[in-house]
Amino acid sequence: MRKFYFTPGPSQLYYTVEEHMKNALKENVPSISHRSKDYEKIHQHAVEAIRSLLGIPDDYHIFFTSSATEIWERIIQNTVEAESFHLINGAFSRRFFEIAENYKINAMSRVVEEGKVVEAEALLIPETAELIAITQNETSTGASQPVQDIAKIRKAFPDQLIALDVVSSAPYADIDYSMVDTAYFSVQKCFGLPAGLGVWIVNNRCFQKAQKLMDKDRIIGSYHSLPSLLEKAVKNQTPETPNVLGVYLLGKVATDMADKGIDQIRRETDYKAAVLYQAFDQSEILRPFVDNEAHRSKTTLVADASVSSKEIISKLSEKAFVIGSGYGKFKDKHIRIANFPTHSKEHIEILADKLLKINN
Amino acid sequence: MRKFYFTPGPSQLYYTVEEHMKNALKENVPSISHRSKDYEKIHQHAVEAIRSLLGIPDDYHIFFTSSATEIWERIIQNTVEAESFHLINGAFSRRFFEIAENYKINAMSRVVEEGKVVEAEALLIPETAELIAITQNETSTGASQPVQDIAKIRKAFPDQLIALDVVSSAPYADIDYSMVDTAYFSVQKCFGLPAGLGVWIVNNRCFQKAQKLMDKDRIIGSYHSLPSLLEKAVKNQTPETPNVLGVYLLGKVATDMADKGIDQIRRETDYKAAVLYQAFDQSEILRPFVDNEAHRSKTTLVADASVSSKEIISKLSEKAFVIGSGYGKFKDKHIRIANFPTHSKEHIEILADKLLKINN
Repeated sequence: MRKFYFTPGPSQLYYTVEEHMKNALKENVPSISHRSKDYEKIHQHAVEAIRSLLGIPDDYHIFFTSSATEIWERIIQNTVEAESFHLINGAFSRRFFEIAENYKINAMSRVVEEGKVVEAEALLIPETAELIAITQNETSTGASQPVQDIAKIRKAFPDQLIALDVVSSAPYADIDYSMVDTAYFSVQKCFGLPAGLGVWIVNNRCFQKAQKLMDKDRIIGSYHSLPSLLEKAVKNQTPETPNVLGVYLLGKVATDMADKGIDQIRRETDYKAAVLYQAFDQSEILRPFVDNEAHRSKTTLVADASVSSKEIISKLSEKAFVIGSGYGKFKDKHIRIANFPTHSKEHIEILADKLLKINN
Repeated sequence: MRKFYFTPGPSQLYYTVEEHMKNALKENVPSISHRSKDYEKIHQHAVEAIRSLLGIPDDYHIFFTSSATEIWERIIQNTVEAESFHLINGAFSRRFFEIAENYKINAMSRVVEEGKVVEAEALLIPETAELIAITQNETSTGASQPVQDIAKIRKAFPDQLIALDVVSSAPYADIDYSMVDTAYFSVQKCFGLPAGLGVWIVNNRCFQKAQKLMDKDRIIGSYHSLPSLLEKAVKNQTPETPNVLGVYLLGKVATDMADKGIDQIRRETDYKAAVLYQAFDQSEILRPFVDNEAHRSKTTLVADASVSSKEIISKLSEKAFVIGSGYGKFKDKHIRIANFPTHSKEHIEILADKLLKINN
């Protein structure tokens, strides 16, 4: 049975991926050397497509890693000497904090309970913090930091580096990337690609910081340190043999999305999110987990269930619709539904209908 | 034009990969959650297939990373406090040494010129060295350390950890893995898979060393530290969202290879290598770069050309046969030819014939 995946990553492949994969095989993409002109073209195309789709400023660098998890580690290694500060409101924002601790960084935090976001106005951060880590969309809870908050935090803390996690919101979230110093995502969420690739956006302030750490004889990593990544990126290459097929597919899908139009994708995402949240409201067994409407994610929607979420998931699964369970301690309490660009209005409408029928 | 890749990685896909990829899409492999039972089955299957094909002892762990380059870094982070020792005979053995230096390790080495291997009998290593890094097959030069040397080095240095690079020789090389503490490879070489996955084999002595480093308050990394990898591996999972499609394909291809028979693969590899080396000998413009026959790689064959290698590569390319250029300073001097399990006897015979015709 062909299933439809509404899981919050990995998820349903973007609808053009299968065709691109066939073409990749025809064009021998997995066999070409990562030091060849053919690869350089693929690399350059992917970087340009991402830059254009997301509106990344020209002087920001775009690097490929193996995952967003890796990028957490590389950010700590390359830009933090002693202190980082993390806005924590769920498992993934906490994971970045823990990676800083693994690197013996004095990781500080403002923690709010799951389902909420840290109030930007009330944020107090020690002057000594070198980096502020913000998770724009916390995949584990469906709580989303309003994009306007980023400019507020930038204004209040001009000296700190700001790292923005857009793992499960790019390219939907309309971010002014010039307001942050680094941002990152992985491709198995909104981009609808096979997992195994992270995208790391970095400005020159991060490079200056890495240089400062090197001058102090600090370890900043090796093949994926910022200087090592840049040395190869200027040639449209990577230090190691990368996930060439992943880079190829990312360039193709980002171009497909640009052709469809980012505004259109955002409008459709808003519409589909409204359909699902309406179903949560109408359902007798579901309610949105995030109380504050302004903080409800449009890409990863989480509902609290008054029955075991396992039961809901299982009933939908019989109809070939796969949705996510709650994360961590909410495993049996929550359902999580991805509303990514590949999910059509029709499929979301059917899913909303099915959710309501479970009710009766 | 459909091309045939004899490049030393990435190379021609293993001949069953395309079919497995089609099945993966049918089975929704790229969409399943990396925390699901479906993924755990895929993971377990790949680990068991690799263990069986390579004859990895039961008490050795098998982990997935993004590349062999990453594994160099993780070995240094997790098993070396102060001193490592590297047998260097080319660009890749040197790269591991450099990564140790990036981590402020006192990296020592025995360097021999390209095309040679370090004599195991003459090896002098300070007692203080914690790790001995051996590159079984140096992809950049086609020089191969005889597998018998590994037991000799093990016997001479029982207290050191031994790390064995089998990036471009596994599964061909008939290694007794119980003689080493850790070994590693990437899948785009002999396994004929799309790049973006490394396989890390680790014994319990490495874990004890990582624990010792932790007890000393040393940084051993984060999501891909040995303890973090093991915590998830016992559940057939990975700390991050992995390259799920890559893990799936690896399990399938390792099983295909086992079905064909590892002995058969080794016999064919020997035969095909003999055909190519004979062509080098008969050619008026080529000679094997590695002088000592016993050190000539059977999987990555390198020839010194008396004409520009660019010309040879270009002429073969017109006939849809893609071979590799020399590495680094040998770029225009050498040709490098992969002799991997996917390369059929027929194709190698045609390639040898074409090489000889360039002569005339």
